[in-house]
Amino acid sequence: MDQKVNSICGISLTPLRVIPTKGGDVMHCLKATDHSFKGFGEAYFSTIDKDAIKAWKRHREMTLNLVVPNGAVRFVIYDDRSNSSSKYLFQEVILSSENYMRLTIPPMVWVGFQGISNNRSYILNVADMAHNEDEIERKELSNINFNWGKS
Amino acid sequence: MDQKVNSICGISLTPLRVIPTKGGDVMHCLKATDHSFKGFGEAYFSTIDKDAIKAWKRHREMTLNLVVPNGAVRFVIYDDRSNSSSKYLFQEVILSSENYMRLTIPPMVWVGFQGISNNRSYILNVADMAHNEDEIERKELSNINFNWGKS
Repeated sequence: MDQKVNSICGISLTPLRVIPTKGGDVMHCLKATDHSFKGFGEAYFSTIDKDAIKAWKRHREMTLNLVVPNGAVRFVIYDDRSNSSSKYLFQEVILSSENYMRLTIPPMVWVGFQGISNNRSYILNVADMAHNEDEIERKELSNINFNWGKS
Repeated sequence: MDQKVNSICGISLTPLRVIPTKGGDVMHCLKATDHSFKGFGEAYFSTIDKDAIKAWKRHREMTLNLVVPNGAVRFVIYDDRSNSSSKYLFQEVILSSENYMRLTIPPMVWVGFQGISNNRSYILNVADMAHNEDEIERKELSNINFNWGKS
Protein backbone atom coordinates (compact mmCIF):
# COMPACT_ATOMS: atom_id res chain seq x y z
CA MET A 1 0.00 0.00 0.00
CA ASP A 2 1.25 3.45 -0.84
CA GLN A 3 1.87 5.68 2.11
CA LYS A 4 -0.53 8.55 1.48
CA VAL A 5 -0.48 11.53 3.79
CA ASN A 6 -3.64 13.51 3.77
CA SER A 7 -6.50 14.73 5.91
CA ILE A 8 -8.64 12.12 7.60
CA CYS A 9 -12.39 12.62 8.09
CA GLY A 10 -13.21 13.70 11.62
CA ILE A 11 -9.68 14.77 12.57
CA SER A 12 -9.36 18.42 13.54
CA LEU A 13 -6.48 20.66 14.49
CA THR A 14 -7.22 23.77 16.51
CA PRO A 15 -4.61 26.47 17.18
CA LEU A 16 -4.47 27.36 20.86
CA ARG A 17 -3.50 30.57 22.60
CA VAL A 18 -0.33 30.85 24.65
CA ILE A 19 -0.53 33.95 26.83
CA PRO A 20 2.83 35.17 28.18
CA THR A 21 2.75 36.41 31.75
CA LYS A 22 5.53 37.42 34.12
CA GLY A 23 7.34 34.26 35.29
CA GLY A 24 5.52 31.88 32.95
CA ASP A 25 2.76 31.41 30.38
CA VAL A 26 -0.87 30.42 30.33
CA MET A 27 -1.54 27.77 27.68
CA HIS A 28 -5.10 27.07 26.63
CA CYS A 29 -6.22 23.43 26.17
CA LEU A 30 -9.97 22.89 26.00
CA LYS A 31 -13.16 24.58 27.12
CA ALA A 32 -16.57 22.96 27.54
CA THR A 33 -17.88 25.44 24.96
CA ASP A 34 -15.33 24.42 22.27
CA HIS A 35 -16.56 22.67 19.17
CA SER A 36 -14.30 19.66 19.77
CA PHE A 37 -15.55 19.14 23.33
CA LYS A 38 -17.65 15.97 23.45
CA GLY A 39 -18.00 15.65 27.24
CA PHE A 40 -15.58 15.02 30.08
CA GLY A 41 -14.70 11.53 31.21
CA GLU A 42 -11.01 11.68 32.12
CA ALA A 43 -7.88 13.77 31.75
CA TYR A 44 -4.53 11.96 31.75
CA PHE A 45 -0.99 12.35 30.48
CA SER A 46 1.02 10.02 28.32
CA THR A 47 4.75 10.61 28.19
CA ILE A 48 7.00 9.50 25.38
CA ASP A 49 10.77 9.31 25.32
CA LYS A 50 12.94 10.43 22.42
CA ASP A 51 12.51 8.14 19.39
CA ALA A 52 10.15 5.80 21.23
CA ILE A 53 7.06 4.74 19.28
CA LYS A 54 3.74 3.67 20.75
CA ALA A 55 1.58 2.13 18.03
CA TRP A 56 -1.08 1.08 17.16
CA LYS A 57 -4.19 1.73 19.20
CA ARG A 58 -7.81 2.31 18.21
CA HIS A 59 -10.60 3.48 20.50
CA ARG A 60 -14.04 2.23 19.57
CA GLU A 61 -15.82 4.91 21.61
CA MET A 62 -13.41 7.54 22.95
CA THR A 63 -12.82 10.88 21.24
CA LEU A 64 -9.29 12.12 22.03
CA ASN A 65 -8.43 15.78 22.57
CA LEU A 66 -4.64 15.94 22.60
CA VAL A 67 -2.20 18.75 23.40
CA VAL A 68 1.57 18.66 23.85
CA PRO A 69 2.59 21.40 26.29
CA ASN A 70 6.21 20.24 26.56
CA GLY A 71 8.36 18.40 24.05
CA ALA A 72 7.39 17.37 20.52
CA VAL A 73 5.39 14.38 19.33
CA ARG A 74 4.67 12.99 15.90
CA PHE A 75 1.20 11.47 15.64
CA VAL A 76 0.26 9.16 12.81
CA ILE A 77 -3.39 8.37 12.19
CA TYR A 78 -4.53 5.60 9.89
CA ASP A 79 -8.07 5.26 8.65
CA ASP A 80 -9.46 1.87 7.70
CA ARG A 81 -13.11 2.67 8.46
CA SER A 82 -15.18 0.87 5.88
CA ASN A 83 -17.42 3.79 4.94
CA SER A 84 -14.87 6.57 5.24
CA SER A 85 -14.04 8.81 2.30
CA SER A 86 -10.49 8.89 3.69
CA LYS A 87 -10.22 5.09 3.87
CA TYR A 88 -6.61 3.80 3.72
CA LEU A 89 -5.16 7.27 4.20
CA PHE A 90 -2.51 8.15 6.75
CA GLN A 91 -2.27 11.57 8.35
CA GLU A 92 0.76 12.89 10.20
CA VAL A 93 0.56 15.69 12.75
CA ILE A 94 3.40 17.11 14.82
CA LEU A 95 2.38 18.74 18.08
CA SER A 96 4.85 20.60 20.26
CA SER A 97 5.15 23.57 22.55
CA GLU A 98 6.26 25.57 19.47
CA ASN A 99 3.39 24.27 17.31
CA TYR A 100 0.82 24.43 20.08
CA MET A 101 -2.47 23.05 18.78
CA ARG A 102 -5.22 20.72 19.89
CA LEU A 103 -5.58 17.50 17.91
CA THR A 104 -9.05 15.97 18.02
CA ILE A 105 -9.28 12.33 16.98
CA PRO A 106 -12.65 10.58 16.60
CA PRO A 107 -13.21 6.92 17.51
CA MET A 108 -12.42 4.08 15.10
CA VAL A 109 -9.17 5.31 13.57
CA TRP A 110 -5.75 3.85 14.36
CA VAL A 111 -3.30 6.09 16.23
CA GLY A 112 0.42 5.81 16.82
CA PHE A 113 2.89 8.35 18.15
CA GLN A 114 6.61 8.94 18.45
CA GLY A 115 8.70 11.18 20.70
CA ILE A 116 10.77 13.54 18.55
CA SER A 117 12.13 15.86 21.24
CA ASN A 118 15.50 15.35 22.91
CA ASN A 119 13.72 15.28 26.23
CA ARG A 120 10.67 13.35 27.31
CA SER A 121 7.48 14.75 25.77
CA TYR A 122 4.14 15.16 27.52
CA ILE A 123 0.76 14.55 25.90
CA LEU A 124 -2.43 15.56 27.67
CA ASN A 125 -5.62 13.80 26.61
CA VAL A 126 -8.89 15.36 27.75
CA ALA A 127 -11.18 12.50 26.82
CA ASP A 128 -14.95 12.24 26.73
CA MET A 129 -14.92 8.97 28.67
CA ALA A 130 -12.75 7.30 31.30
CA HIS A 131 -10.15 4.73 30.32
CA ASN A 132 -11.80 1.40 29.56
CA GLU A 133 -9.77 -1.51 28.18
CA ASP A 134 -12.94 -2.97 26.62
CA GLU A 135 -13.20 -0.23 24.00
CA ILE A 136 -9.52 -0.33 22.99
CA GLU A 137 -8.08 -2.40 20.17
CA ARG A 138 -4.36 -2.82 19.58
CA LYS A 139 -2.12 -3.88 16.72
CA GLU A 140 1.60 -4.51 16.64
CA LEU A 141 3.70 -1.72 15.10
CA SER A 142 4.51 -3.90 12.10
CA ASN A 143 0.87 -4.75 11.42
CA ILE A 144 0.16 -1.39 9.81
CA ASN A 145 2.64 -0.60 7.11
CA PHE A 146 3.94 2.88 7.84
CA ASN A 147 7.50 4.11 7.48
CA TRP A 148 8.39 5.60 10.86
CA GLY A 149 11.96 6.34 9.77
CA LYS A 150 15.23 5.11 11.15
CA SER A 151 14.43 5.08 14.88
CA MET B 1 0.82 37.67 61.97
CA ASP B 2 2.55 34.39 62.71
CA GLN B 3 3.14 32.18 59.72
CA LYS B 4 1.18 29.05 60.57
CA VAL B 5 1.39 26.05 58.31
CA ASN B 6 -1.49 23.68 58.61
CA SER B 7 -4.36 22.08 56.77
CA ILE B 8 -7.00 24.38 55.32
CA CYS B 9 -10.67 23.37 55.19
CA GLY B 10 -11.70 22.19 51.75
CA ILE B 11 -8.18 21.56 50.42
CA SER B 12 -7.50 18.00 49.41
CA LEU B 13 -4.47 16.13 48.15
CA THR B 14 -5.01 12.92 46.19
CA PRO B 15 -2.16 10.58 45.25
CA LEU B 16 -2.27 9.70 41.56
CA ARG B 17 -1.08 6.61 39.71
CA VAL B 18 1.87 6.73 37.35
CA ILE B 19 1.85 3.61 35.18
CA PRO B 20 5.18 2.83 33.49
CA THR B 21 4.91 1.58 29.94
CA LYS B 22 7.55 0.92 27.29
CA GLY B 23 8.80 4.27 25.98
CA GLY B 24 6.93 6.41 28.49
CA ASP B 25 4.41 6.55 31.32
CA VAL B 26 0.70 7.06 31.74
CA MET B 27 -0.01 9.61 34.47
CA HIS B 28 -3.52 9.87 35.88
CA CYS B 29 -5.04 13.34 36.47
CA LEU B 30 -8.78 13.39 37.03
CA LYS B 31 -11.84 11.30 36.24
CA ALA B 32 -15.44 12.45 36.17
CA THR B 33 -16.16 9.86 38.86
CA ASP B 34 -13.50 11.21 41.27
CA HIS B 35 -14.62 12.79 44.51
CA SER B 36 -12.84 16.05 43.70
CA PHE B 37 -14.48 16.41 40.29
CA LYS B 38 -16.99 19.26 40.40
CA GLY B 39 -17.75 19.52 36.67
CA PHE B 40 -15.75 20.45 33.60
CA GLY B 41 -15.45 24.01 32.39
CA GLU B 42 -11.88 24.32 31.11
CA ALA B 43 -8.48 22.66 31.16
CA TYR B 44 -5.41 24.90 30.83
CA PHE B 45 -1.74 24.96 31.73
CA SER B 46 0.17 27.56 33.69
CA THR B 47 3.95 27.44 33.44
CA ILE B 48 6.29 28.85 36.03
CA ASP B 49 10.00 29.51 35.71
CA LYS B 50 12.58 28.71 38.38
CA ASP B 51 12.17 30.95 41.44
CA ALA B 52 9.35 32.97 39.86
CA ILE B 53 6.38 33.63 42.13
CA LYS B 54 2.80 34.24 40.99
CA ALA B 55 0.73 35.52 43.93
CA TRP B 56 -1.94 36.22 45.08
CA LYS B 57 -5.12 35.18 43.36
CA ARG B 58 -8.52 34.17 44.69
CA HIS B 59 -11.34 32.59 42.71
CA ARG B 60 -14.82 33.40 43.98
CA GLU B 61 -16.43 30.49 42.13
CA MET B 62 -13.85 28.19 40.53
CA THR B 63 -12.66 24.97 42.14
CA LEU B 64 -9.10 24.18 40.99
CA ASN B 65 -7.84 20.66 40.34
CA LEU B 66 -4.08 20.99 39.92
CA VAL B 67 -1.40 18.52 38.86
CA VAL B 68 2.27 19.08 38.03
CA PRO B 69 3.40 16.47 35.48
CA ASN B 70 6.78 18.09 34.87
CA GLY B 71 8.93 20.21 37.17
CA ALA B 72 8.20 21.13 40.78
CA VAL B 73 5.95 23.84 42.18
CA ARG B 74 5.42 25.17 45.68
CA PHE B 75 1.82 26.21 46.29
CA VAL B 76 0.88 28.42 49.23
CA ILE B 77 -2.76 28.74 50.22
CA TYR B 78 -4.01 31.35 52.65
CA ASP B 79 -7.42 31.24 54.25
CA ASP B 80 -9.13 34.44 55.35
CA ARG B 81 -12.70 33.17 54.95
CA SER B 82 -14.74 34.71 57.76
CA ASN B 83 -16.46 31.52 58.91
CA SER B 84 -13.61 29.09 58.31
CA SER B 85 -12.19 27.00 61.14
CA SER B 86 -8.81 27.36 59.41
CA LYS B 87 -9.07 31.18 59.22
CA TYR B 88 -5.67 32.92 59.01
CA LEU B 89 -3.84 29.66 58.36
CA PHE B 90 -1.36 29.10 55.54
CA GLN B 91 -0.85 25.74 53.90
CA GLU B 92 2.12 24.80 51.75
CA VAL B 93 2.02 21.98 49.22
CA ILE B 94 4.80 20.92 46.85
CA LEU B 95 3.66 19.14 43.70
CA SER B 96 6.12 17.61 41.28
CA SER B 97 6.56 14.68 38.94
CA GLU B 98 8.23 12.86 41.88
CA ASN B 99 5.43 13.79 44.33
CA TYR B 100 2.66 13.29 41.82
CA MET B 101 -0.63 14.25 43.45
CA ARG B 102 -3.77 16.20 42.64
CA LEU B 103 -4.32 19.35 44.69
CA THR B 104 -7.96 20.43 44.94
CA ILE B 105 -8.54 24.02 46.02
CA PRO B 106 -12.04 25.32 46.74
CA PRO B 107 -13.18 28.87 45.92
CA MET B 108 -12.50 31.81 48.25
CA VAL B 109 -8.99 31.01 49.45
CA TRP B 110 -5.88 32.90 48.32
CA VAL B 111 -3.37 30.98 46.21
CA GLY B 112 0.21 31.73 45.25
CA PHE B 113 2.83 29.52 43.65
CA GLN B 114 6.55 29.41 42.97
CA GLY B 115 8.67 27.45 40.52
CA ILE B 116 11.21 25.36 42.42
CA SER B 117 12.60 23.24 39.59
CA ASN B 118 15.70 24.17 37.59
CA ASN B 119 13.58 24.00 34.45
CA ARG B 120 10.20 25.51 33.70
CA SER B 121 7.40 23.71 35.56
CA TYR B 122 3.98 22.86 34.14
CA ILE B 123 0.73 23.04 36.09
CA LEU B 124 -2.46 21.61 34.66
CA ASN B 125 -5.73 22.97 36.04
CA VAL B 126 -8.86 20.97 35.23
CA ALA B 127 -11.39 23.53 36.41
CA ASP B 128 -15.14 23.31 36.88
CA MET B 129 -15.73 26.55 34.96
CA ALA B 130 -14.07 28.45 32.15
CA HIS B 131 -11.73 31.35 32.88
CA ASN B 132 -13.72 34.45 33.83
CA GLU B 133 -11.94 37.59 35.03
CA ASP B 134 -15.11 38.66 36.90
CA GLU B 135 -14.73 35.92 39.50
CA ILE B 136 -11.02 36.50 40.14
CA GLU B 137 -9.58 38.75 42.81
CA ARG B 138 -5.91 39.64 43.03
CA LYS B 139 -3.55 41.02 45.66
CA GLU B 140 0.05 42.11 45.35
CA LEU B 141 2.63 39.63 46.67
CA SER B 142 3.45 41.93 49.60
CA ASN B 143 -0.18 42.31 50.65
CA ILE B 144 -0.29 38.89 52.29
CA ASN B 145 2.53 38.45 54.74
CA PHE B 146 4.20 35.16 53.83
CA ASN B 147 7.92 34.41 53.84
CA TRP B 148 8.63 33.01 50.36
CA GLY B 149 12.37 32.78 51.07
CA LYS B 150 15.28 34.46 49.37
CA SER B 151 14.08 34.34 45.75
